[in-house]
Amino acid sequence: MSVTKEAVLKALATVDDPDLKKDLVTLNMIRDLEVDDDKISFSVVLTTPACPLKEMIKNDCLKAVSAVAGEDFPIEINMTSEVTSTRLDTTPLLPNVKNIIAVASGKGGVGKSTVTANLAVALAQSGAKVGVIDADIFGPSLPTMFNCEHEQPSIVKKGDKNLIVPIEQYGVKVISIGFLTPSDNAVVWRGPMASSALKQFIGDADWGALDYLLIDLPPGTSDIHLTLVQTVPVTGAIIVTTPQKVALADATKGLAMFKQPQINVPVLGVVENMAYFTPEELPDNKYYIFGQDGGRKLAEKFDLPLLGQIPVVQNIRESGDNGYPVVLKDNITAQSFKTLAQTLAQQVAIRNSSLLKTKKVEVNI
Amino acid sequence: MSVTKEAVLKALATVDDPDLKKDLVTLNMIRDLEVDDDKISFSVVLTTPACPLKEMIKNDCLKAVSAVAGEDFPIEINMTSEVTSTRLDTTPLLPNVKNIIAVASGKGGVGKSTVTANLAVALAQSGAKVGVIDADIFGPSLPTMFNCEHEQPSIVKKGDKNLIVPIEQYGVKVISIGFLTPSDNAVVWRGPMASSALKQFIGDADWGALDYLLIDLPPGTSDIHLTLVQTVPVTGAIIVTTPQKVALADATKGLAMFKQPQINVPVLGVVENMAYFTPEELPDNKYYIFGQDGGRKLAEKFDLPLLGQIPVVQNIRESGDNGYPVVLKDNITAQSFKTLAQTLAQQVAIRNSSLLKTKKVEVNI
Repeated sequence: MSVTKEAVLKALATVDDPDLKKDLVTLNMIRDLEVDDDKISFSVVLTTPACPLKEMIKNDCLKAVSAVAGEDFPIEINMTSEVTSTRLDTTPLLPNVKNIIAVASGKGGVGKSTVTANLAVALAQSGAKVGVIDADIFGPSLPTMFNCEHEQPSIVKKGDKNLIVPIEQYGVKVISIGFLTPSDNAVVWRGPMASSALKQFIGDADWGALDYLLIDLPPGTSDIHLTLVQTVPVTGAIIVTTPQKVALADATKGLAMFKQPQINVPVLGVVENMAYFTPEELPDNKYYIFGQDGGRKLAEKFDLPLLGQIPVVQNIRESGDNGYPVVLKDNITAQSFKTLAQTLAQQVAIRNSSLLKTKKVEVNI
Repeated sequence: MSVTKEAVLKALATVDDPDLKKDLVTLNMIRDLEVDDDKISFSVVLTTPACPLKEMIKNDCLKAVSAVAGEDFPIEINMTSEVTSTRLDTTPLLPNVKNIIAVASGKGGVGKSTVTANLAVALAQSGAKVGVIDADIFGPSLPTMFNCEHEQPSIVKKGDKNLIVPIEQYGVKVISIGFLTPSDNAVVWRGPMASSALKQFIGDADWGALDYLLIDLPPGTSDIHLTLVQTVPVTGAIIVTTPQKVALADATKGLAMFKQPQINVPVLGVVENMAYFTPEELPDNKYYIFGQDGGRKLAEKFDLPLLGQIPVVQNIRESGDNGYPVVLKDNITAQSFKTLAQTLAQQVAIRNSSLLKTKKVEVNI
């Protein structure tokens, strides 16, 4: 055997994570390195299973190690992930939830819940542990979107606490006010009542360990937003908008809200939903029903990442919603949601890395 | 002259208003009747200038009077209107506003503000005096829709009160919270603050005499809805929805809210917005992007009038919104809004008539 562990590590120290702009060894991403007579094996622990650069990083590692071990020497790379977090020690609430992401919109009806549902399913499909709170107290849509409208969450006793058990669907844990009130019943919630329901979903539910907990906020800027940030430290917020002017005006207000000193939640980026409509049978016809590139312009104006532009695709014979998230289908909308999930996970990892970078990094080999 | 006033009135007493299901004489709709040697002339005072049956009623009158006066005898009919009201004596607030119509939706983003703006313009085009309050405190869209975003309402002193003067655009008087706050500024309104702004728009604005005052409510069911009905007697509410399931679930909640004993506002009907999308160049292709006939089914379920189904029409080169209500254009969406305005005015008249029918009817000739 002509190559040492040290030589392999030195080679891997030339491979950078393009997002985090550091090499994999410094980032503590190389684990379980074994150098035997007949093969070299190691794991690359990415910061999210939804990493869009997974294949690229794997190939870079292969190339770097082959250069020192010889072109044909067997190399086994186990691509895995460990979602990063900056909040584990900061709060007694939800200590096993690594990242809490608020999904907000200035305006209602921009597809905030659709985006939340599809993001959650896409993240879960990538291998992450995902939960969703439907905090849209005034119009909870997630039970319909997850096709579990008629389910009732059970209660489990843990210690001296009764905890609500989230419903699991498409690999995602879901809690919604919709499970607790009959759908025909008008709930005229005064602000404080709504806030107290949200607190219960956060504090009195059996979430277990999660990589990402998405919170589908009510549209606008109101009590419940204040409650959320006062109750639990949110990793970041994403703003969903449609491209039209009136939606952008409201999205701008939503953005400004997160920046207010008493709220101060980082905005991870902008999602432009219903970016255009295209008939499935005429894919070259793009109808910018709600205007063009509004989300992109908003992101540029506030110097934020544009996380994705999601089109509406429909077949002329198709109609309506059936509780089956589109990301589970096979079309360009589904692909857009998968890419969105990757881009979001990437932004979360970049943000966590920038906060963690002052901490000492140890290399475990 | 062979015909008397009495004979003409007797003939006109055979003509019914099909909506109000009574004859025009009983309904006090025939005014200024003159029977001369060379012509008969009278006015028909309809209950709204937006009456969809105007031409039909005129023809019925012509036919009935010709039958007694002779086929070729000149008859001059002046079709006019006087919008009815049931609220003139009931409140010191807005005594000169005949009908207050709340435009509500369970869900945001269903086009409630678009419907309000186009309804208002269509009613004004028919000849009615129309005002609009943008009570969507969390996301005021009407300034953009009326292309008056940068206007500032002036203040006028009347008696010992300072009154806000509504902006006039496309023949409609408009007041919006959007005039009072800069558009980039986040307004995190706590419920009570929002309610107090709404009260000011109602009580401290110089509305003058109006036939219809439309109030564009925030989506959902919250403080501001309670405030509205506690502040001012609302003639009725209309519910705007898009056809998809999650919107209908929320619309159902909105409906239930108006029926609650402490609110108790009559619902005048349902508007299905974005009923389908059709490319202007392919008018036979209807894409039910948000599902099909959801609004119709909702109306049927709750035994309410379906006031209209509004399609989205777009040319492939067209994009975005420009502060010019579509009802001012010439396409099937515009036509749908005009019909909607007529149907709504009709429902208001029918409702007012049913409440007024116990009062004594006097015939002025």
